[in-house]
Order: sequence, then structure tokens, then C-alpha cells
Amino acid sequence: MEQMNDHQYFIQEAIKEAELAVITGDGEPFGCVIVRDGKIIVRAHNRLYIDYDPTAHAETVAIRLACKQEKSLILKDCIIYASAQPCPMCSTAISACGAKEVYYCVPGTQIQEAFSQITNFEELGLHPKQFLRREYPCTHIHNDEGLKVINSYFTSKKPK
Amino acid sequence: MEQMNDHQYFIQEAIKEAELAVITGDGEPFGCVIVRDGKIIVRAHNRLYIDYDPTAHAETVAIRLACKQEKSLILKDCIIYASAQPCPMCSTAISACGAKEVYYCVPGTQIQEAFSQITNFEELGLHPKQFLRREYPCTHIHNDEGLKVINSYFTSKKPK
Repeated sequence: MEQMNDHQYFIQEAIKEAELAVITGDGEPFGCVIVRDGKIIVRAHNRLYIDYDPTAHAETVAIRLACKQEKSLILKDCIIYASAQPCPMCSTAISACGAKEVYYCVPGTQIQEAFSQITNFEELGLHPKQFLRREYPCTHIHNDEGLKVINSYFTSKKPK
Repeated sequence: MEQMNDHQYFIQEAIKEAELAVITGDGEPFGCVIVRDGKIIVRAHNRLYIDYDPTAHAETVAIRLACKQEKSLILKDCIIYASAQPCPMCSTAISACGAKEVYYCVPGTQIQEAFSQITNFEELGLHPKQFLRREYPCTHIHNDEGLKVINSYFTSKKPK
């Protein structure tokens, strides 16, 4: 039997967090895990609705949790796995915390199709590798479940 | 005697918050106030060091506080006054919360000169008016105190 590689495993864990956001109604359908030395140190999902916080995107929530936990502003040995391509806000936060690498599942263009009001990042010159302080490597990992969760959000009962 | 206009008054209040960040050692020298109907509803300064939170920029902290206070993700009747030009992260947060307008004091280029590691926003195509969801009007207000506070940060004792 073919063994699932680490990247697919952690991307699935990020997608599970996105599912949790939908099931709980805590926020929009996005999830994230932060990994150090092959172990998840933080899991988080979007908390827009439960926190009344427009900045509570999965990656930003995860970075806040991890930094608080580590009592550090820097996460340089960490890899971030996100169920979808980080937005400009989260990309800047990722860049600021110095995470080593990012893997994401659903590309920005597909998020844009689902959330029709969101502007195309590339069109605005907001390439995810180009943000404050430094670039970071950002790799797309395909997984069918990623987009499925986003679509499920639009058919689920939303709290607002 | 010439009366100080509203914009200068609120920009000075934002600069006072930036001074507080330096005096307390809570974070980097940036401050912000959020105004509705001519009244300050929230004041905040950068809290990087005290919160161990790389996303705790003044504008992002202020938006979080205001949204929690208003129990809303939207601040559409609000004006944001920032002691310095919002970074890409804060600009996206401002755009997401739908604030009506932004006034800032120290331009990004001058912040860049002070914090030499920060990349030029324009160079990266990160014009502050171009972010997620929608553009917002963003106006520069000159005030000599703005840059003075940033420079005082580098001569003060920093906690880390």
C-alpha cells in the first residue's frame, strides 16, 4: 500500500480544521496547522463569527497561538500547512513570523470563484511570495477535499 | 488662534498611542485610533512584545478591539487614523472590516528608512489602496511628531 507522504498528511489535518469551522459555525471554511520537527504544534480554523474578529483567519489565528505558546515572535523552524492559499494579510503575518515554508491546498483563484467578492490576488500584484520583510517558499499541494469543504460552507447553515 | 482641524487632532491622538508603545515597551512605535461620528471609539498601539504576537500591529489591534466592542465584523461608518502608513497585513484588515477612510502620518518609505529590513511596499506592488475585497481612500497627513516617535524608539531601551 502506498504510504501517504507527510505533506499530504498535514494538508489533510489543515482541511479537517476547515471542516471544523463549517461544522461549528465558528467562521469561514479555512484551516491551518503549524508543524515543527514533523509534529503539529498548533491547529486552528477561521474564527470570524465566534470572535467577531475580521482578522481571525486560520493562518493568523495559528501564528498567534504558536507565538504565544512559544513565547516568541519568530517561528523560523516551523512549516505552515493551510487548507487554502493565504490571503495578503496572512501572507504578511507568515512573512513577519519567519516561518520556513508554506504548503497550501486550494489556490487563491478557486477561493475567488467561491467567494465572488474577493479580488484576484495576482491582478493586484499581490503574489503570495512577495510580502513584508522577506519572501517565503509557498507550494501548492493538491487534495480534492480542500475545495469540497469550501463548497460545503455555502450549502451549510451560516450563523450570519 | 488657528484651530486644529479634526484630522490633525485624531492623528495626534494616534501618535500619542505610538509614544505609549515606546514608553511602556509594549511594542514597536506605532499607534492608531478609530473614530465614528467625530468620537474615538478605540485607541490602540503596537503590542508585539507584550503579547508575543507578530500580528499585533496598532491598526490590527484597534480593528479587533472595535469589532469585539461593536459585536460586528464591519466598521463601515468608521475612520481609521494611524501614526504611520498601514502595512500590507493591516491594509488587508482595514479593507476586510470595511472602514470608510484612512488617514496616516508617516509614509511607508520613511518607515522603511527607519526599519531597514522592511521592503518597500510600492516596489512589491503593494500599494496600500489595493487590497483584498475593496479599495479604501487613504490620505497622508503631515505631522512632525510622527517620525520623531519612530526615531525615539531606536534610542530607547527595548525589551527585546
